Amino acid sequence: MNVSRFGQKIASTSGIGRLMEDLGNAMSQSSNTLMLGGGNPAHIPEVQKYFRDSIEKLLRDGSAFEKAIGNYDPPSGNIEFIEAVAKLLQKEYGWNIKSKNIALTNGSQIAFFILFNIFAGTYKDKTEKKILFPLTPEYIGYCDVGMTDDFFIAQKPVIEHEDEQIFKYHIDFENLKIDKSIGAVCVSRPTNPSGNVLTDHEIDRLSRLASANNIPLIIDNAYGLPFPNIIFTEIKSIWNENIILCLSLSKLGLPSARTGIILANEEIIDMVSKVNAVMSLAPGGMGPVITTDLIKTGQIISLSRNIIRPFYHNKAKISLELAIRELNGIKFHIHKPQGTFFLWLWFPELPITDTRLYENLKQKNVLVVPGNYFFPGLKENWPHKNQCIRVNYSQDSAIFRKGIKIIAEEVKIAYNV
Amino acid sequence: MNVSRFGQKIASTSGIGRLMEDLGNAMSQSSNTLMLGGGNPAHIPEVQKYFRDSIEKLLRDGSAFEKAIGNYDPPSGNIEFIEAVAKLLQKEYGWNIKSKNIALTNGSQIAFFILFNIFAGTYKDKTEKKILFPLTPEYIGYCDVGMTDDFFIAQKPVIEHEDEQIFKYHIDFENLKIDKSIGAVCVSRPTNPSGNVLTDHEIDRLSRLASANNIPLIIDNAYGLPFPNIIFTEIKSIWNENIILCLSLSKLGLPSARTGIILANEEIIDMVSKVNAVMSLAPGGMGPVITTDLIKTGQIISLSRNIIRPFYHNKAKISLELAIRELNGIKFHIHKPQGTFFLWLWFPELPITDTRLYENLKQKNVLVVPGNYFFPGLKENWPHKNQCIRVNYSQDSAIFRKGIKIIAEEVKIAYNV
Repeated sequence: MNVSRFGQKIASTSGIGRLMEDLGNAMSQSSNTLMLGGGNPAHIPEVQKYFRDSIEKLLRDGSAFEKAIGNYDPPSGNIEFIEAVAKLLQKEYGWNIKSKNIALTNGSQIAFFILFNIFAGTYKDKTEKKILFPLTPEYIGYCDVGMTDDFFIAQKPVIEHEDEQIFKYHIDFENLKIDKSIGAVCVSRPTNPSGNVLTDHEIDRLSRLASANNIPLIIDNAYGLPFPNIIFTEIKSIWNENIILCLSLSKLGLPSARTGIILANEEIIDMVSKVNAVMSLAPGGMGPVITTDLIKTGQIISLSRNIIRPFYHNKAKISLELAIRELNGIKFHIHKPQGTFFLWLWFPELPITDTRLYENLKQKNVLVVPGNYFFPGLKENWPHKNQCIRVNYSQDSAIFRKGIKIIAEEVKIAYNV
Repeated sequence: MNVSRFGQKIASTSGIGRLMEDLGNAMSQSSNTLMLGGGNPAHIPEVQKYFRDSIEKLLRDGSAFEKAIGNYDPPSGNIEFIEAVAKLLQKEYGWNIKSKNIALTNGSQIAFFILFNIFAGTYKDKTEKKILFPLTPEYIGYCDVGMTDDFFIAQKPVIEHEDEQIFKYHIDFENLKIDKSIGAVCVSRPTNPSGNVLTDHEIDRLSRLASANNIPLIIDNAYGLPFPNIIFTEIKSIWNENIILCLSLSKLGLPSARTGIILANEEIIDMVSKVNAVMSLAPGGMGPVITTDLIKTGQIISLSRNIIRPFYHNKAKISLELAIRELNGIKFHIHKPQGTFFLWLWFPELPITDTRLYENLKQKNVLVVPGNYFFPGLKENWPHKNQCIRVNYSQDSAIFRKGIKIIAEEVKIAYNV
């Protein structure tokens, strides 16, 4: 089929395409795969009860349900929801946030498509600018989003070994260069895939660097504060006119609603709203409708702090223990799980590639994500890129237990132990 | 703000941006605007009852609701829903449709963003291809979707006057040229804004022309058969491996769910699914969940035929009569309302532009859409482009009655009658 460069580039087999395909197939009822691969959040009963109550309340509230499903929202998204989010953030952090600082998108993924292509790619004067990831590994979903070639640039991290088993990535500020070829800086915090949480110091320094270069700092906060709060360290959340903070309802437990939330200065929000109109007419209304009351009452904060965070923190601890126990006998490192719901396993002496390991595991009905997809923009031939896998521990513990056992067996076979 | 060409192009004030902004503001509770401007469907109680019943059934069905909201669908969309749509179309039309011929998108708008940019724009060999609209006026939402300049090419229609008041557009096949610069042909049927329904003969001829040139024919079927069936003439619906048929749940009454449905050959669907993964991770699941049973049982067909179609057909007749009565005394034509829920009013001797008329009406709290936005790709300086407005008659009849009265008054002031 003869298609445009856009078609060829974006539709060629992508990391995120493989991930979502595997995820979708594994989630379909007929599958008996041990699903440690995707980014699906857990079904936490206490949280789901809120969503059920919310939709039941909506159904009882006269014609509120009919109004909710039957009208387009404006291009920036549901007005009542946006006002509630603005007030929540004012109250929680004292930020000077108004409705005009917020736009919704049909999920966070398209928010990054929009933002990256606004700030990188070809400019009017024909210069090309890139998105800089100051630390890789970074989120797989960014990989194919750029509409021009050579869209990302990224940097290797500094690796700190806490002990034999646990390590942590840091930004290599010594070697971090920002020049006119950079259109924006982006980090996810907590980081998908590693579970890293950049320190307050690192974020402050990035924010200052971005401001000094007059480019925005984009923070992917899909797992962060104040909701869903899947973050196990104490950090400060910051926002200013030069930071674009992206939130989501997905990891709260509503991936099906596709609700992304962008927080930025008015000029950027106005632009995002216009892009929304052109690309999507309007963001969907179901996510906002289900969660507006949760936000208005502030319950979303306590729910996140008291239910969601402890739920995943507990899973993180158990999963880490299990992984360390099962992997005993071979050389491995695990990134300190500070947030998200992934373990990032590093096998520094793995004799096969991560892709081969992924394939071997898939043969045994265990789905993980090979690590090499998580280095968007890192052109350097760094062996580390092929020594890691991402393992989701959000689902049923029994599945994780079986899965990590098989992973350990497979790695041991590869290591010939 | 320094942004890329993509940012500049797509986010500059667009027709669809203005439309959606006005629509959103008018739909917010505080407004007392007479809303004849947007594309919001009516709230039909009998239809909404189905949606309410459906979500109530879901809530009673064990943890079906929790599963529906808590999982990502695969990149091509909800599997059960897609299977149901495939079976429905097989049964209704005898088409050889399988699940692999269907992908969902977050609303129809992004389906056109994806399809247009796959088939037009810059190709690998650096040639530029365009989307051809063989008949304008055509849908406002297409205008700004192209990521390169000079993205569309369009053609003036042949105008047939049925009587003094009623006219109909036809495709000017005599002058229709398809050469290597065309990447795909696109029509909406029924046509938004005019309410035109291309004849079976016209569609057959376009389909043959597209096949002969080895490019797809894209049919925007958002108001068409078999659902929502807002179409008041008897026509044949066709599909083949070279036709991309786009359906939607929006005009059925679910705009908030953002569910678009693309029907095409497997190769195109595979490509759309990959683009979905990259741009959106996955389509939303709420629309499919609310309507899967309606589709499985075939009720969506009877609902469309027996409730939705007569509802709008009746409104079309009443609105047309009202408009003819109110506009009495000035020179006007109205496109024969054969489908959609718009009247397309043409004032051939209008001394002011359509944009000025729109502004004047907005001052009097009546929102319509100025006609000049509905000629994407038509570069010719054709006076007709500034002599028309689109008026939505889907909402409360009292609003239409008041609105058309004010429109007539304003046009008469402009005509100096």
